[in-house]
Amino acid sequence: MSTISRAAQFAQRTAHLRASTIREMLKVTQQPDVISFGGGLPAPELFPTEAIARACSRVMERLGPAALQYSVTEGIPEMRVWIAERLTRRFGRIFEAESVQIVNGSQQGLDLVGKVFLDPGDHVVLEDPSYLGAIQAFDAYQTRYLTVDTDEDGLLPDSLERVLERADPFPKFLYLVPNFQNPTGRTLSGRRREKVVRVCEHFGLPIVEDDPYGELRFEGSDLPPLISYESAAPIVYLGTGSKIMAPGMRIAWLVIPDDEIREKIVLAKQGADLHSGTFAQYVFHEYAMDGDAFDAHVRTIAQTYARRRGVMAESLAEFMPEGVRFTRPSGGMFLWVTVPEVDTTELLRISTESKVVFVPGVNFYPGRNVNDGMRLNFSNASEKNIRVGVERLGHAIRVYKGVS
Amino acid sequence: MSTISRAAQFAQRTAHLRASTIREMLKVTQQPDVISFGGGLPAPELFPTEAIARACSRVMERLGPAALQYSVTEGIPEMRVWIAERLTRRFGRIFEAESVQIVNGSQQGLDLVGKVFLDPGDHVVLEDPSYLGAIQAFDAYQTRYLTVDTDEDGLLPDSLERVLERADPFPKFLYLVPNFQNPTGRTLSGRRREKVVRVCEHFGLPIVEDDPYGELRFEGSDLPPLISYESAAPIVYLGTGSKIMAPGMRIAWLVIPDDEIREKIVLAKQGADLHSGTFAQYVFHEYAMDGDAFDAHVRTIAQTYARRRGVMAESLAEFMPEGVRFTRPSGGMFLWVTVPEVDTTELLRISTESKVVFVPGVNFYPGRNVNDGMRLNFSNASEKNIRVGVERLGHAIRVYKGVS
Repeated sequence: MSTISRAAQFAQRTAHLRASTIREMLKVTQQPDVISFGGGLPAPELFPTEAIARACSRVMERLGPAALQYSVTEGIPEMRVWIAERLTRRFGRIFEAESVQIVNGSQQGLDLVGKVFLDPGDHVVLEDPSYLGAIQAFDAYQTRYLTVDTDEDGLLPDSLERVLERADPFPKFLYLVPNFQNPTGRTLSGRRREKVVRVCEHFGLPIVEDDPYGELRFEGSDLPPLISYESAAPIVYLGTGSKIMAPGMRIAWLVIPDDEIREKIVLAKQGADLHSGTFAQYVFHEYAMDGDAFDAHVRTIAQTYARRRGVMAESLAEFMPEGVRFTRPSGGMFLWVTVPEVDTTELLRISTESKVVFVPGVNFYPGRNVNDGMRLNFSNASEKNIRVGVERLGHAIRVYKGVS
Repeated sequence: MSTISRAAQFAQRTAHLRASTIREMLKVTQQPDVISFGGGLPAPELFPTEAIARACSRVMERLGPAALQYSVTEGIPEMRVWIAERLTRRFGRIFEAESVQIVNGSQQGLDLVGKVFLDPGDHVVLEDPSYLGAIQAFDAYQTRYLTVDTDEDGLLPDSLERVLERADPFPKFLYLVPNFQNPTGRTLSGRRREKVVRVCEHFGLPIVEDDPYGELRFEGSDLPPLISYESAAPIVYLGTGSKIMAPGMRIAWLVIPDDEIREKIVLAKQGADLHSGTFAQYVFHEYAMDGDAFDAHVRTIAQTYARRRGVMAESLAEFMPEGVRFTRPSGGMFLWVTVPEVDTTELLRISTESKVVFVPGVNFYPGRNVNDGMRLNFSNASEKNIRVGVERLGHAIRVYKGVS
């Protein structure tokens, strides 16, 4: 139909390209005997259900109708202060509540970033591979991608420099997930963080730093986010309550110290949906206000996921055929498996019959040029199912290779 | 800064043009002794606070973690069924749950419609005057507007026909608010509804029908929405829970029988924020499921607003100088005052000193070419304050005219 916008047509073409496998895969996961490493769901049994129920009652008692009325676009002041204080406490640099914009999950943050920065044909710089949801959000703005090489310690600053020297047109921003990246589970090393900031500062390239998993560290110490470095190039930071409280509340946040960019983001948010849920924000804040309980709950999530990561890594070592490599992330929800000479999109067909699914790695490469990766989620399955699922996956690889 | 997208720059220019007066006005309303007819807030004292608190508890007891997890982009099935059934019951045509997309308030519905239909430079057809929030949502897509004349019975089908005959480029859709329009309070008459549908069908023009106030009828019978007519041209219908439950929950809906448009809208919603709040949807549905209580509550809201509309109309008749005209809407939240030979933007400066504010009409005209209108909200002030505020407004007009 000719009435459909070019942006919507473009988004549909790219979505078909990138996500049709995933949609098919997610349908399969609704069968009860299928073990899914495919989605990106937190463990629902760890949601603080009772504490949230209590927070709902307290908000209604204390605020009544004020918790249900329209509210300001930037977010309720209590939430903005809580976020600024938590970042300040974690990273020893002062973050201002005025820099915070509340959004409906990080996905909306990415969409607003796209709306404010991107015109059709613009370039965005991505890690290779990169987070699929970000690619989908930017696709809506008819964007093209430049990719930077990565290794075990994340994005390579030298590769970034080479890409920026040659880029034409010059890109609008670098998007990256520095902690326990989706999809690889890798973390940008401490030494590289300042280098990445300096390269971007040198070229005047804004950074969009997406940090959904930073609080879910299993071992080692927190590394400072890129936004904690002084830089002349603007940095937009995304955090979320989805992994440390519950995704169904749709509470996430942008931290945007740059006044001009923030002003445009606020205006874009106003046009997009006026403001995020007043009630959901008050309930989140009421729940998070009890700092000790909140921190204890985040630790419980991290410890549970650490055990699941451990079981998955051990099972991979036990059940994978020779030559298969995998990451052992220090946090987050995903690890990455490389199966040399195997097209994992084909492998998924076989593994689905064996009742185990994952996301084929090709979907995370903007150029769709690497076929031997798999993203495995370890947050949403029990330790027992992780072991059974990895064994099934090993079997499927052997069937694929015709050795079973 | 050159990194800002053309769309964001355009949105900012138009927002400055259209909304800076309003932002200033809303700041003033935070002073406690100011009577505001300016905002568009429902009466918070009518929010079903206790029933919502009970719904929160019941949802948590019954569903637990499932109410807090990620959910599907289209919305939870229970909400989609509830909306389809309510429309079917009200209008005697069958609406399908599959046509429904849940969004975060009508504003997000308008934004998604913009994303799916509009490219830079495209035309949208609007009533003159028209709803400011829609203009702001469409502005983000660098849109231009064609306007159709209106009278006491709403949009004039003959004027629409003339506009479409001459339009170049041909517009992407007609946007209208058929019931108790924002800003005028006028309702598109029953006789004209089918005519508007037929004109659009003849020209193949999609219709975007925004119906936030339809359930708040004070007198007379419901008129069928445009979407209840059979038509070869697609119709997208927007409804919301903001006026019949509470805006802070951010629950609204699109009804999109056309498969191709709906598919694009779902994809745009997925890119925009994955899905609306799972918990908020379950709480809304739990509350709404008790149909008798829900209907009784909607009647209470309508009766309260009807009394306030009555007091405002009587006060206008009593306190306005000769020559001032005003509408007497049969529902909704706004009425429209015409003050011949008065620039109401100037008048607002004077009335602010008299501690009463409103939205100057010029902001609702896409061409910004009519200066003598005022939009008055009657849902958010008490009957006593409405009377006092209108008296102050009459005084301000006399001051403006130099007769006081």
